[in-house]
Amino acid sequence: MLLQSIRVVLVNTSHPGNIGGAARAMRNMGLSRLYLVAPEDFPSSEAVARASGATDILDNAQVVATLEEALVGCTLALGTSARDRRIPWPLLDPRECAATCLEQVGQGAEVALVFGREYAGLTNEELQRCQFHVHIPSDPSFSSLNLAAAVQVLVYEVRMAWLAAEGVPSKQEKLETTAMLNSQPATMDELELFYGHLESTLVEIGFLDPEKPRHLMSRLRRLYGRGGISKLEMNILRGILTETQKAARGEAHTRRKR
Amino acid sequence: MLLQSIRVVLVNTSHPGNIGGAARAMRNMGLSRLYLVAPEDFPSSEAVARASGATDILDNAQVVATLEEALVGCTLALGTSARDRRIPWPLLDPRECAATCLEQVGQGAEVALVFGREYAGLTNEELQRCQFHVHIPSDPSFSSLNLAAAVQVLVYEVRMAWLAAEGVPSKQEKLETTAMLNSQPATMDELELFYGHLESTLVEIGFLDPEKPRHLMSRLRRLYGRGGISKLEMNILRGILTETQKAARGEAHTRRKR
Repeated sequence: MLLQSIRVVLVNTSHPGNIGGAARAMRNMGLSRLYLVAPEDFPSSEAVARASGATDILDNAQVVATLEEALVGCTLALGTSARDRRIPWPLLDPRECAATCLEQVGQGAEVALVFGREYAGLTNEELQRCQFHVHIPSDPSFSSLNLAAAVQVLVYEVRMAWLAAEGVPSKQEKLETTAMLNSQPATMDELELFYGHLESTLVEIGFLDPEKPRHLMSRLRRLYGRGGISKLEMNILRGILTETQKAARGEAHTRRKR
Repeated sequence: MLLQSIRVVLVNTSHPGNIGGAARAMRNMGLSRLYLVAPEDFPSSEAVARASGATDILDNAQVVATLEEALVGCTLALGTSARDRRIPWPLLDPRECAATCLEQVGQGAEVALVFGREYAGLTNEELQRCQFHVHIPSDPSFSSLNLAAAVQVLVYEVRMAWLAAEGVPSKQEKLETTAMLNSQPATMDELELFYGHLESTLVEIGFLDPEKPRHLMSRLRRLYGRGGISKLEMNILRGILTETQKAARGEAHTRRKR
């Protein structure tokens, strides 16, 4: 499976909680292969706690001594980096990074996403082992993300690219299926019957003056027209109008008696 | 600045570390307004530690008792949710969520991103206060993200959308502005007053049985929430309800006389 060809490499991590958080983020997004280059504290109960169930990833994590070992078998490595480096280098944002990963693994390649130390990041030497640098576009005045959060952003983008490649329904499709679930949209003629019923009811309760209708009905048509009304919703609205008329007739009756 | 009109609302958070992590993620992505609904442990040194310098956001966080208070002044609320819910609802992925937020704040609106409890998420009642639900497309076999990680994903997408849109007003924005016909959108608190008024009126006219409400109010919330209601339209709807109640009281009066 494509996502299994993408490994996450954490270099010289000092806080085991971040290793656990990274494992959880990977598992959430369907990735499983974690490489730890000279972690300061691993295995660790703190890592297990933060992984919150993603222990299979921690148990299967490859602990190695150097970045080179972590990259064995990979044809592409992408290293996370702050934006301004002295050496010019192909720089991708997380979305471009994900597209590049999917393109490569689609051709049967192995790819590595490489993350540096909590405070110092990756050294220039380590960054030069990566064909591409990846920068998460953060606020320049507060640019350093938590390590597990940075892993979350990149593996999230990888999953989004993978889902897009698999083909998922568009926003509009989703809105329609959810909005219309167990109910067909109301037809134009049903809508007209509703607007007629609404208008006569508004007259009956004394809210709409047929002599001075102003823009009331057109405003209401725009309001109800905008959302797209289902047959089910139409039945509810018609039912409300019917009950309202019964109430109004009750009052009209009382008035006549006064 | 647009990003300042987007607030992050954390409901009933149990681990202060997640509050700190969320604050750091917000600061990294240029957001600043944090609302905490009944946090279990705040202020907290653990929150400060995980915020790793984003203490301004913790210091300025608004601590409130209810979700309603956290949404005062907002015209749009998007609630994070697991995918399968009994009541269908417009469901967005994080990218669609970010696009929707930017469209709204581009029109001067206030928007809320609402996150639930670490283990239980948001209640159905809380989710019904949100016009849209947002689902982070995670692996179904391990779908629950860490709270701070979920905040990171959504605010990252908000920043990506903001960077893409910066300065340039989209077609969608112009379409929606005309749809709002130079009238401000109703705020969440105005909407809640309307739903309350609607519910009591439906009970008064005998359409809604408080003993057996079924899904009536949630269906109506979905219907009215979908289109986006302007203040002008809200006044019209409230006026209709007031007239309906007068009529209903007339009928009730007659009934008592029989």
